[in-house]
Amino acid sequence: MARALVLGAGMVGSVIAADIAADERFEVTIADRSDASLQKAAARCAGRISTTVADLSDPAAIRRLAGDADIVLGALASHLGYDALAAVIDAGKPYSDISFMAENALDHDAKARAAGVTCVVDIGVAPGMSNLLAGAAAHRMDQCDRIEIYVGGLPVERRWPFQYKAGFAPADVIEEYTRPSRIVERGEIVVRPALTEPELLDFPHIGTLEAVNTDGLRTLADTLDVPNMVEKTLRYPGHYELMRVFRATGLFSKEPIEVGGQRVIPLEVTSALMFPKWTYEEGERDLTVMAVIAEGVLDGKPTRLRWDLYDEHDAATNFTSMSRTTAFPCAIVARLLHEGKITTPGVLPPEKLGAMPGVLETVMDELRARGVRYTETVEAI
Amino acid sequence: MARALVLGAGMVGSVIAADIAADERFEVTIADRSDASLQKAAARCAGRISTTVADLSDPAAIRRLAGDADIVLGALASHLGYDALAAVIDAGKPYSDISFMAENALDHDAKARAAGVTCVVDIGVAPGMSNLLAGAAAHRMDQCDRIEIYVGGLPVERRWPFQYKAGFAPADVIEEYTRPSRIVERGEIVVRPALTEPELLDFPHIGTLEAVNTDGLRTLADTLDVPNMVEKTLRYPGHYELMRVFRATGLFSKEPIEVGGQRVIPLEVTSALMFPKWTYEEGERDLTVMAVIAEGVLDGKPTRLRWDLYDEHDAATNFTSMSRTTAFPCAIVARLLHEGKITTPGVLPPEKLGAMPGVLETVMDELRARGVRYTETVEAI
Repeated sequence: MARALVLGAGMVGSVIAADIAADERFEVTIADRSDASLQKAAARCAGRISTTVADLSDPAAIRRLAGDADIVLGALASHLGYDALAAVIDAGKPYSDISFMAENALDHDAKARAAGVTCVVDIGVAPGMSNLLAGAAAHRMDQCDRIEIYVGGLPVERRWPFQYKAGFAPADVIEEYTRPSRIVERGEIVVRPALTEPELLDFPHIGTLEAVNTDGLRTLADTLDVPNMVEKTLRYPGHYELMRVFRATGLFSKEPIEVGGQRVIPLEVTSALMFPKWTYEEGERDLTVMAVIAEGVLDGKPTRLRWDLYDEHDAATNFTSMSRTTAFPCAIVARLLHEGKITTPGVLPPEKLGAMPGVLETVMDELRARGVRYTETVEAI
Repeated sequence: MARALVLGAGMVGSVIAADIAADERFEVTIADRSDASLQKAAARCAGRISTTVADLSDPAAIRRLAGDADIVLGALASHLGYDALAAVIDAGKPYSDISFMAENALDHDAKARAAGVTCVVDIGVAPGMSNLLAGAAAHRMDQCDRIEIYVGGLPVERRWPFQYKAGFAPADVIEEYTRPSRIVERGEIVVRPALTEPELLDFPHIGTLEAVNTDGLRTLADTLDVPNMVEKTLRYPGHYELMRVFRATGLFSKEPIEVGGQRVIPLEVTSALMFPKWTYEEGERDLTVMAVIAEGVLDGKPTRLRWDLYDEHDAATNFTSMSRTTAFPCAIVARLLHEGKITTPGVLPPEKLGAMPGVLETVMDELRARGVRYTETVEAI
């Protein structure tokens, strides 16, 4: 039996552990600083995993745990991701990670190459499958002129006023609404304010959604030689206008203001009031919607390649759509690492996997087996 | 020369003083705790008024100043209005007041009657002219079944996101958006949440506005025997939806919350951020729009009486529309008091003046002479 170590027992980590634990080739240990989270994760896996309480902000702890493992899977809070990656490389173990670090994971590429270790990062849904599909499109086409990624995690029921619940840390959502977005136009990286260039688009099962610029390209902006690339985030129409108003009012400001003789950070007050309203209630269903569109020349003809994902909360497992669509690619890629189907040493963003023969097909098959279905469309333009 | 005393040298008080000072029958003194405000007011009157620095939260100071006057005009901050009214009654002087006190001015009615003093309160635009017209309609009709008052003070230019500037204290505006509104239906006082029962209405010069319930009937709910009465406040469409979202988010809450180890009152943070955006910039024009509609039986026939006001900032005097429409009725009624045309002792809300022969006509003529035009429509229904 191979030993798999899962770092982080949150909503995504526990689903990763459950997925790997269902595979008889692996014995699974999950680590987290919270015993309560570990017990919840263990319950999800019907006790088929071991748990260990550990401070994963301590690289030495990660090195020690990873040293006992054959394969490591990361689902840590974003601020822990960068140092954890370095620690897993130090331990010399293959790594499949969705920790969504703010830093550039490729900083550790040379170190991973030197150690002969393969680490796939950002391997969730977006980033993750979006990169894999973008990479596959760019690789498959004779010439790729444009890649557009539209993605959103949403509550199935839209409730006034926000019509939104956050599938991950709400503070990261506000960060996404305020940080300028890097997009690629005519081969140049250009920066646009967040929440700009709104488009209304129709999606099956949902209806009309609004897409705006957010800073989601991450490694794609550097790794793919495609002259036009953009990632836009999807919400129910009306949500972004409120967010623009809140931003314009100063409610998202991190600059302290003087109120009642105290220094107060407006964003902290807004967060305290708003985030409870952004939290999924028990039993409240979520959905994930994504479209990855690539335009260019395929077999000598102007072509549009498009992948569409629509996924909902799974009542059978009680896994949220966000955790399904994020955890499964990570768990599937961990198996590919373990099986020696991905061996290139270094820190690999998922677009690199898109150029590897058979990887996309295997990932798609495995996702389909778990009920997560991407449909591919090829159309002449 | 009669001696007129103006209490309060704010935006409205200074316009009241200017109006009275232009009348050769009066010598005017204006009192305020702020010398800066007094100097501004004096400049507006080309020096034709005397100023006196006084603490108008001290009833003794008001009694002393009023003792030297023949007629008193009130334009105080709302929290000072109630005690100031009592002090003017104690001084035994007629009083025309727009201080918009939260308390019930009629509490002082018995005291004023006993002293043989006539005090007209709430004599601005709404409350004020709205009451006068409602009272006149109820008096003129054989039977009045319904009175609707629609009123708003707005910037001429509507700017995203709020499309609103506050002509008076923004905190009073939020109070209006949160306090339940009393309306009269089938002879009963009923209470509706603020910002409810929206209607879209078209107004000449402006276009479509949105009207919602606000708690504006004040004395009308008690003094007029009309079975259906409502006051609704007008804003550009979209404003109220934002206010409902802010209210629902908790941003208008006065309950402290714990943020960063401090107790913070959300409304104070919101106010600090939002009110600067609600403040008229130098040279930014405002408008006032009002419709008072009365339905019932007139001369035996089902009839709708309607008065419409549309007024804008006056470039010649640089008086805002809010101060024009509020200050002029107060100054005009002060003259009627001085001329002995209103003599009933007691605290009189303006609807009482609507039943006095000739008063409405005189007020309308005087307003018209100042460019504030109410148009009357009589229509069979």
